Amino acid sequence: MSKQFKAAIVEEFGPTLTVRETDLPEPGPFQALVKNVASGICHTDVHAACGDWPVKPEPAFIPGHEGVGEVVKLGPGEHDVKVGDMVGNAWLWSACGVCEHCLSGHETRCEKAEYGGYTVDGSFGEYMLVDTRYCPRIPEGVDYQEIAPILCAGVTVYKGLKVTNTKPGQFVVISGIGGLGHIAVQYAVAMGMRVIAVDIADDKLELAKKHGAEYTINAKEKDPAEAVVEYTNGGSHGVLVTAVHSDAFGQAINMTRRGATIVFNGLPPGEFPVSIFNIVLKELTIRGSLVGTRKDMAEALDFYARGLVKPTWKQVGLDDVNDVFTGLIDGTIDGRRVIKY
Amino acid sequence: MSKQFKAAIVEEFGPTLTVRETDLPEPGPFQALVKNVASGICHTDVHAACGDWPVKPEPAFIPGHEGVGEVVKLGPGEHDVKVGDMVGNAWLWSACGVCEHCLSGHETRCEKAEYGGYTVDGSFGEYMLVDTRYCPRIPEGVDYQEIAPILCAGVTVYKGLKVTNTKPGQFVVISGIGGLGHIAVQYAVAMGMRVIAVDIADDKLELAKKHGAEYTINAKEKDPAEAVVEYTNGGSHGVLVTAVHSDAFGQAINMTRRGATIVFNGLPPGEFPVSIFNIVLKELTIRGSLVGTRKDMAEALDFYARGLVKPTWKQVGLDDVNDVFTGLIDGTIDGRRVIKY
Amino acid sequence: MSKQFKAAIVEEFGPTLTVRETDLPEPGPFQALVKNVASGICHTDVHAACGDWPVKPEPAFIPGHEGVGEVVKLGPGEHDVKVGDMVGNAWLWSACGVCEHCLSGHETRCEKAEYGGYTVDGSFGEYMLVDTRYCPRIPEGVDYQEIAPILCAGVTVYKGLKVTNTKPGQFVVISGIGGLGHIAVQYAVAMGMRVIAVDIADDKLELAKKHGAEYTINAKEKDPAEAVVEYTNGGSHGVLVTAVHSDAFGQAINMTRRGATIVFNGLPPGEFPVSIFNIVLKELTIRGSLVGTRKDMAEALDFYARGLVKPTWKQVGLDDVNDVFTGLIDGTIDGRRVIKY
Amino acid sequence: MSKQFKAAIVEEFGPTLTVRETDLPEPGPFQALVKNVASGICHTDVHAACGDWPVKPEPAFIPGHEGVGEVVKLGPGEHDVKVGDMVGNAWLWSACGVCEHCLSGHETRCEKAEYGGYTVDGSFGEYMLVDTRYCPRIPEGVDYQEIAPILCAGVTVYKGLKVTNTKPGQFVVISGIGGLGHIAVQYAVAMGMRVIAVDIADDKLELAKKHGAEYTINAKEKDPAEAVVEYTNGGSHGVLVTAVHSDAFGQAINMTRRGATIVFNGLPPGEFPVSIFNIVLKELTIRGSLVGTRKDMAEALDFYARGLVKPTWKQVGLDDVNDVFTGLIDGTIDGRRVIKY
Repeated sequence: MSKQFKAAIVEEFGPTLTVRETDLPEPGPFQALVKNVASGICHTDVHAACGDWPVKPEPAFIPGHEGVGEVVKLGPGEHDVKVGDMVGNAWLWSACGVCEHCLSGHETRCEKAEYGGYTVDGSFGEYMLVDTRYCPRIPEGVDYQEIAPILCAGVTVYKGLKVTNTKPGQFVVISGIGGLGHIAVQYAVAMGMRVIAVDIADDKLELAKKHGAEYTINAKEKDPAEAVVEYTNGGSHGVLVTAVHSDAFGQAINMTRRGATIVFNGLPPGEFPVSIFNIVLKELTIRGSLVGTRKDMAEALDFYARGLVKPTWKQVGLDDVNDVFTGLIDGTIDGRRVIKY
Repeated sequence: MSKQFKAAIVEEFGPTLTVRETDLPEPGPFQALVKNVASGICHTDVHAACGDWPVKPEPAFIPGHEGVGEVVKLGPGEHDVKVGDMVGNAWLWSACGVCEHCLSGHETRCEKAEYGGYTVDGSFGEYMLVDTRYCPRIPEGVDYQEIAPILCAGVTVYKGLKVTNTKPGQFVVISGIGGLGHIAVQYAVAMGMRVIAVDIADDKLELAKKHGAEYTINAKEKDPAEAVVEYTNGGSHGVLVTAVHSDAFGQAINMTRRGATIVFNGLPPGEFPVSIFNIVLKELTIRGSLVGTRKDMAEALDFYARGLVKPTWKQVGLDDVNDVFTGLIDGTIDGRRVIKY
Repeated sequence: MSKQFKAAIVEEFGPTLTVRETDLPEPGPFQALVKNVASGICHTDVHAACGDWPVKPEPAFIPGHEGVGEVVKLGPGEHDVKVGDMVGNAWLWSACGVCEHCLSGHETRCEKAEYGGYTVDGSFGEYMLVDTRYCPRIPEGVDYQEIAPILCAGVTVYKGLKVTNTKPGQFVVISGIGGLGHIAVQYAVAMGMRVIAVDIADDKLELAKKHGAEYTINAKEKDPAEAVVEYTNGGSHGVLVTAVHSDAFGQAINMTRRGATIVFNGLPPGEFPVSIFNIVLKELTIRGSLVGTRKDMAEALDFYARGLVKPTWKQVGLDDVNDVFTGLIDGTIDGRRVIKY
Repeated sequence: MSKQFKAAIVEEFGPTLTVRETDLPEPGPFQALVKNVASGICHTDVHAACGDWPVKPEPAFIPGHEGVGEVVKLGPGEHDVKVGDMVGNAWLWSACGVCEHCLSGHETRCEKAEYGGYTVDGSFGEYMLVDTRYCPRIPEGVDYQEIAPILCAGVTVYKGLKVTNTKPGQFVVISGIGGLGHIAVQYAVAMGMRVIAVDIADDKLELAKKHGAEYTINAKEKDPAEAVVEYTNGGSHGVLVTAVHSDAFGQAINMTRRGATIVFNGLPPGEFPVSIFNIVLKELTIRGSLVGTRKDMAEALDFYARGLVKPTWKQVGLDDVNDVFTGLIDGTIDGRRVIKY
């Protein structure tokens, strides 16, 4: 094992990473060193690199939180994984394990959580560290590139769909059929929901259809709220908003049946106007959902391993990361780009 | 029984009602004629009279949805109440009984519901009609004036507290200690919650203390969100917003523990800005709650009948209704005003 | 319309019905007269005819609670159905509408409920009465014979599965693949559950496989509890017991993962031994589920109408009812027998 | 610190412990050595000493799982407690932290859990080891003897009451007002439930009254099921069975309202007869509950620290342990006996 490895590094905030050699870290207690074979590139990595959010990471750092690799070295102490195991990193890199949220199966709410590729170095490099108590276990026999997007996009929409509280046989609207949305369609179908897909691009709506959406709406061509209310005979039971822009909030509220639940999955900066009158009159529930717990992750991976979910992705190299960032910012990327090491 | 009765009538939209004689209605199927002994005056009656909301009532009409009286005549068919029974009217005057919401114990969501003192004549008169399938039953041995506010204010905050999902031993913030809030404090205490009261008037905060709030915050004197987070060691588990103004939304979000639920009870016109980033990061749930079902009503009345909840109220006459409206608009009314017939 | 119609009548308790003419009833308030086109024959009808249960019906009466027919006459008053509509009867023929259970979406718990083919005459005849507030609405474009078993067997297992609280992606065991069980397999698959079927007949297990069970166990050939625990890596999350005999209880408990839920769908006379030690140690939930509400029924019918559930059935005539009873008692009937009128 | 300490030891299965010196253990990773100041004596300790249950501990061992003491030495590695902190041990001494149950806030279901005073040495000695990730934190300013029973009896009934799913304002029956039951009454009252106490000893029922039970039934004098049904106008919403004997099961079922939940807290050997007919007809839920998680424990301790729960107890010495065991077996002990070191 060499003492240096190649990684894409944020030297200072901005969308351009430097691909260069950096020192190989030593795994501490509860940590393992992982030799990566794949890493997805998520829009959150762009936000991280650009320092878009209120709480910022500290350059220089390595983004990436959809990494898959092989454990090559364990830190001191006992571990629940062993050298040779295939594991991943994730946005929820670790949590404190003792706060009220951690104790009640809600570790995504831990105030002391570490975030992969944000507060700790991530998977945009040939090696990474993981916390062996928290790192996802990669099921046997899977495609390591294809499974990468499940580690963030997959678990995020899976958990988001769970907290919409939509029951099998009820309607759910997936608003936005991009990197998150096209996977959400598949999870929702596998969970027995009746799926309506909303986007402004016909090819994305075609993909949604292929994955089992029973009704699709091009929001450029007709009012999506009216179309949903008509198709569902009163409004959807659940709405998962993966593409958050100013219009989405109001649209989502107008798409709903009374008593429905709207879940937001993204982290847009800024504020959005909301009509409390409508929320009260329709007894709506609006809920934020952030990635997922280790349990959610294991379940999301299991759906993939059973062949029920298949991300759309293309292979790139580590040196392509800046081009992919440009595409994500321009909105010209369809599906996921996954680095192969 | 005379053929006419005295009532306070909205002749045209505006805060001034006309007190005059009007024709006594005949109860139809599922209806009873009730001789009123009391009626609370709610801020919603002002909104009704002024036509403030998107869906408006049709003048001339009689407001009032906290009425208590004696059944004096039954319409044709079978009934679950009999002449001589003490019943009330309520905001949820009736519902269709067959839609998916009615069938699942969520009749407040019925799209064909009738509203007391809004779509059907209410309790601001010596007589009123009720739907015998939906009218609240008044427990024996209670004070008929004092129980009136339970029929709207009481059931509204009781149901609102239920859907905050706050468990016994957890913290709930009651934001606004007015006609709704001072009753909410009492229900929350009876439900085993630890109550924090927020208002800008010291006498209202004193009342909250008297009713069992363990901590009170004058929002004029310190930042309520900071004070709640400090007192609760991280934020409240639930927040019930009874006083909705622009600031309340942002404050409520900042008062919360991660994973908390914020419930809105009022129906303010207009839109409010909301930070989706915070909702997602903290995995918050925001929920609207509108009055309560017949089951919620029976429970809310039972808490009152067992002596656990006591509204603050003063007796007025039917002729005082316009003065009370003026006071409600000016914000100079403390507690409930209840008409005695 | 003639003044008499042909029906299979229980003259006195025992498994032999008399097929004869009887007087056509007149629909009362909230009632409709229905001209039947089909009726399923359920094992409960045998229990009814034989007076097997503690609370007994009163002969002479007409059994049958899976009837489908056309409304031909309405009783006095307003109705939510009209002449010409296709409706069904059901085990839950009506409920009081005002008790705490009815008010909270749990009308199956109503203490004043009437039961089709038990406390009121049922569908083993050319005509029947239904309560228009409670009778199931038959979706358009369906096969009237094939849908009949959904009205009891279907809704019963659908509701039973719901209260097992098994989530999409989790395991559920269907114990007994008879009239209830083979339909349960299909609902469970449509609800995203991973289904394990247990029976002692290979042809029934084959049917379960065809309907999507991913693992089947012949309880004559190996210990079903051990096989389930091994296959599921620890035990099933849910168990639906449709075939209740002495062994089933203990087996069900031993099949479970800790924290699992076991639901009983049948009404066996007698008592069964249970180990409280195991229930406590494994934190199990054991639950009884009786048919379903109108909401459950509408959902169950919707799954059928969308082509996700298809009962196995054979057509018989009204005169065959005693032969079918014999077969049900002998256990030689596979799938449902449905009378065509 | 001496190298030996005094403890009550089970040398071989049977109700007689040997009080003698034994070697002081060295805390390993995640462990702390605790100098005890108090330990409650629970009936489970008798079962442990006698080897009554299917899975048995291995003599020689030290029972006791309601210990309170001061951390005097920490094992290697980092810890969430420090020397000088007051901590307890508990029946759930530790869990694996990585299984599906641990990950979802249900660590009491962990199959690799260790049990205090059972699979690891307990608190019947001057010193004990605890797992610093799992040991309860003792709130400041409390009575160390009095709080001891909260560590097992308290958390057990608190969690049991939670899973009865009884809401504030609903009825719960506490069946058996002994060491568990008299504490259960107090938690239930603090949680807003309406409490009915059932026992066969008038002094215990008096104690229940004092602690806020609104109705008490001496099961020797009248049929408790009939009395509950009459008092509650239909049956209790929840039943907590703390005293499990053959009669309790059937009685509990007959005490319930339809849709009610019955929770068992004890671990009786043997099997009990149950009528599935009644469970199905009444749609009952029967549930086992075993102690509580760390979160439940923190909550249970908080109720105590806020003065809402006060165990009845008497001080004994370590040498009295065999006498207390005799009393527990004879049923002559009222309230808890707590060892003072």
